[in-house]
Amino acid sequence: MSFTAAEIIYLASQRLGRIATVHPDGTLQVSPVCYTFDPGTGCFDVAGISMATSRKFHNVADNGRVAFVVDDLASVDPWRVRCVEIRGHAEAIKASAEPGGRYDGAIIRIHPERIISFGIDDDRDPHELTVHSRSVVGTAEPSP
Amino acid sequence: MSFTAAEIIYLASQRLGRIATVHPDGTLQVSPVCYTFDPGTGCFDVAGISMATSRKFHNVADNGRVAFVVDDLASVDPWRVRCVEIRGHAEAIKASAEPGGRYDGAIIRIHPERIISFGIDDDRDPHELTVHSRSVVGTAEPSP
Repeated sequence: MSFTAAEIIYLASQRLGRIATVHPDGTLQVSPVCYTFDPGTGCFDVAGISMATSRKFHNVADNGRVAFVVDDLASVDPWRVRCVEIRGHAEAIKASAEPGGRYDGAIIRIHPERIISFGIDDDRDPHELTVHSRSVVGTAEPSP
Repeated sequence: MSFTAAEIIYLASQRLGRIATVHPDGTLQVSPVCYTFDPGTGCFDVAGISMATSRKFHNVADNGRVAFVVDDLASVDPWRVRCVEIRGHAEAIKASAEPGGRYDGAIIRIHPERIISFGIDDDRDPHELTVHSRSVVGTAEPSP
């Protein structure tokens, strides 16, 4: 586990993240999504309406490449952006049973390999803040 | 120009976007950024502290691939996400003169090729909303 306590609290406090994936032809896409974060495994699960038929789901199934960011603008004066960015790989997991409703039960599970964090639990002048960037130790490989 | 009037108003009302780029080795990244949008050209300019030395600037200089999204959570009950996503290409433009301060004058200029819009100027029940996806006509090629 490579997230700090402050990052875990921050990730639990936010409602949207943005997931970037890449099409087989190399085109990038990025879109807002809901997520759940498991501090025990360090993984993020992303669900959504008609997930299994979405472009991002197909992209992840194709190549497993993903970046994900949770951020907010905590203050405008001074300008204070906070963010936790994840770079890593992901799994496209289809639901074993149809849960009903518009959510099809499919998820994208994100395994962080690198964490880039900025402005979390740090109330110094924004100009004094630095980026905290580090690799994740012991990331599980995706299921075959 | 392929943005609707409602999208232009929305883009002017928001403070942060999220830009996704790809490293030369294929790793994806995504990060929050400030932007300006020119309704006349349809281009987005992204600036930032130490932009010219940033990873995203180098990525754009390397391969020009980019996706960009502006979104917000307009309502929690009902759950109402609004977003304008851009897929396209970008230029890494170095400043011709040093503007001083921590901003180095370098920008990433995003040329949309595809617009994916959701929930903008549409107050229907969120379950009734649909994605508006379309190609941009007449996008200028990046400068040599």
